[in-house]
Amino acid sequence: MTRDVPIPVTVVGLGSMGRALAGAFADAGHPTTVWNRTPAKAAPLVAKGAVHARVVEAAVEASPLVITCLTTFEDTRSALEPAAAALSGRALVTLNSGSPAGARAMAAWATGRGARFLAGAVKNVPEAVGAPDTLLYYSGDKTVFDEYETTLKVLGGDTVHLGDETDLAALYEMAVGAMLLPALVGFFQGAAAVQARGLEASSMVRFAGKWLDMIKSLLPVYATEIDRGDYTDAASSVNLFLAGAAHDMELTKETNVDVAWLAPLHDLVGRAAAAGHGDHSISALTEVLRKPAQKA
Amino acid sequence: MTRDVPIPVTVVGLGSMGRALAGAFADAGHPTTVWNRTPAKAAPLVAKGAVHARVVEAAVEASPLVITCLTTFEDTRSALEPAAAALSGRALVTLNSGSPAGARAMAAWATGRGARFLAGAVKNVPEAVGAPDTLLYYSGDKTVFDEYETTLKVLGGDTVHLGDETDLAALYEMAVGAMLLPALVGFFQGAAAVQARGLEASSMVRFAGKWLDMIKSLLPVYATEIDRGDYTDAASSVNLFLAGAAHDMELTKETNVDVAWLAPLHDLVGRAAAAGHGDHSISALTEVLRKPAQKA
Ligand SMILES: NC(=O)c1ccc[n+]([C@@H]2O[C@H](COP(=O)([O-])OP(=O)(O)OC[C@H]3O[C@@H](n4cnc5c(N)ncnc54)[C@H](OP(=O)(O)O)[C@@H]3O)[C@@H](O)[C@H]2O)c1
Ligand SMILES: NC(=O)c1ccc[n+]([C@@H]2O[C@H](COP(=O)([O-])OP(=O)(O)OC[C@H]3O[C@@H](n4cnc5c(N)ncnc54)[C@H](OP(=O)(O)O)[C@@H]3O)[C@@H](O)[C@H]2O)c1
Repeated sequence: MTRDVPIPVTVVGLGSMGRALAGAFADAGHPTTVWNRTPAKAAPLVAKGAVHARVVEAAVEASPLVITCLTTFEDTRSALEPAAAALSGRALVTLNSGSPAGARAMAAWATGRGARFLAGAVKNVPEAVGAPDTLLYYSGDKTVFDEYETTLKVLGGDTVHLGDETDLAALYEMAVGAMLLPALVGFFQGAAAVQARGLEASSMVRFAGKWLDMIKSLLPVYATEIDRGDYTDAASSVNLFLAGAAHDMELTKETNVDVAWLAPLHDLVGRAAAAGHGDHSISALTEVLRKPAQKA
Repeated sequence: MTRDVPIPVTVVGLGSMGRALAGAFADAGHPTTVWNRTPAKAAPLVAKGAVHARVVEAAVEASPLVITCLTTFEDTRSALEPAAAALSGRALVTLNSGSPAGARAMAAWATGRGARFLAGAVKNVPEAVGAPDTLLYYSGDKTVFDEYETTLKVLGGDTVHLGDETDLAALYEMAVGAMLLPALVGFFQGAAAVQARGLEASSMVRFAGKWLDMIKSLLPVYATEIDRGDYTDAASSVNLFLAGAAHDMELTKETNVDVAWLAPLHDLVGRAAAAGHGDHSISALTEVLRKPAQKA
């Protein structure tokens, strides 16, 4: 029954993402307390009814559930340090990017101060916070997840607990997130190339969107190849990408776009071919990535 | 009325993609003639009722519409050279990857031999050939496109003519395609990282698929920023990616996965920040890519 009363929540860190998180809680009727190093960023949350704590200790003391969204784990610890004594017995949930080692260090710090700890990640942009399809995953203390699952779902309907090991969310965050910057730079390069021809970058969007759908459809196939270690049934071979590499370099000549960042990717493809994977699926690159870098 | 009778089609080049193209025409009831340098690859098409021409000249002579799918434009010219005389008056459609310059050279060669020429690209995998949603785009002689549009749609329902300039399809092919290898290597790196933890690559697939949906949703926003040259309304800033770069490098330590290929990407992000784009949208990287590479 008490579950029907929205639980008080504190959000520490009001950058782009933290503001979205705090806004979602306030909109959902949770008594919401916020704190940010730069106080001015609290104003839009106060307008939504949130309480602005001037010191971080007061913010932590205001709620049983404390959610942080700062740039890194290090920033999170340094911001929470003055409130360390107040953490005891509370549930602390971090929602920043960071390495698995960073998550483990954070967990040691938090549990050392008596907090129950969950490390999570928002797998979307601030605008998507609160949507039924938005994915957030968590790892660590399952009792925290179970107790606050309904509240955490305010941030996104696709809310998952990956396992008890605190660093799993960070591991998946890095593993899944590894596509983002490379894919975006590929898109920006394409945008620069069509613009060099006097065309709008927006003219690529429909095609690029379908291209991402196509890439998405390949992922289960590649994952199965990688899990089996069997790359012999190649729909798109390493050699095909090797031939494509030569075209990429021509882009600079045609459009004055800098494609130097592609050189190590082509090098990986070349190393896979040299290792006997030429006729194998492009997913065989995983085997080359597994080894430490070798000097040619 | 004659339009209701399927037009005879010749497919030259029976690699993974060429076999899918020829198979789609044969399945759709088009009198289909095929040729391949390595004749054995014609067998599955013959089983579908296609005619296997032993010399390329006979293949070209068999149909008013000749579609090639070889690795490069150079390969295409060298394979077609013995049939050059037979090309006059026919419609030649290339469906290989290649640079805009390669497409222009191909067009000059083909029109020099009296062919009407269209250069296209299949924006999907062989398995998707023939599906209603599969995208193929073409550029060049619009009269060829108009005359054979119904036939070309056998290969994919989303069939587009980009413009009269022969190299536009190659330009978009490169621009749109630029996301593929980087995104896949990101996925393979993530797969190697979760495997190093004793988890299956397949466990990432659902999350990675949603991540690609998220990236897709960002493309129109970034394209607009790039077209306007206004990067000031940043949902995800250059500085945020700069912070992320540090985490990426930890992946090697944790999982023995080689992340050296990311260094030039991080360098681009760093250069964007140094150029004053730190608080700007990550799409501001386009401005850095536009300049020729600079030695540090
Ligand atoms: N934005 C996205 O699209 C997105 C998507 C998924 C995940 N994330 C992750 O969410 C986290 C936050 O991202 P964001 O976009 O909100 O970043 P942001 O807009 O740059 O905000 C960073 C926040 O961290 C605070 N901060 C940083 N260092 C601090 C310190 N030493 N002491 C106290 N406060 C400190 C900042 O306080 P000030 O206001 O005082 O500077 C600000 O509240 C990151 O780990 C990011 O990777 C973001
Ligand atoms: N597969 C895909 O997923 C995909 C997707 C989109 C676009 N594409 C593009 O489609 C084109 C073909 O790809 P694919 O996957 O079919 O490649 P593939 O399986 O490697 O087949 C290559 C084809 O080209 C022929 N060939 C190459 N050089 C030749 C030469 N000098 N003379 C005669 N024939 C030659 C090969 O003949 P032999 O059989 O005698 O070797 C074979 O028929 C490429 O440009 C590729 O980028 C492919």
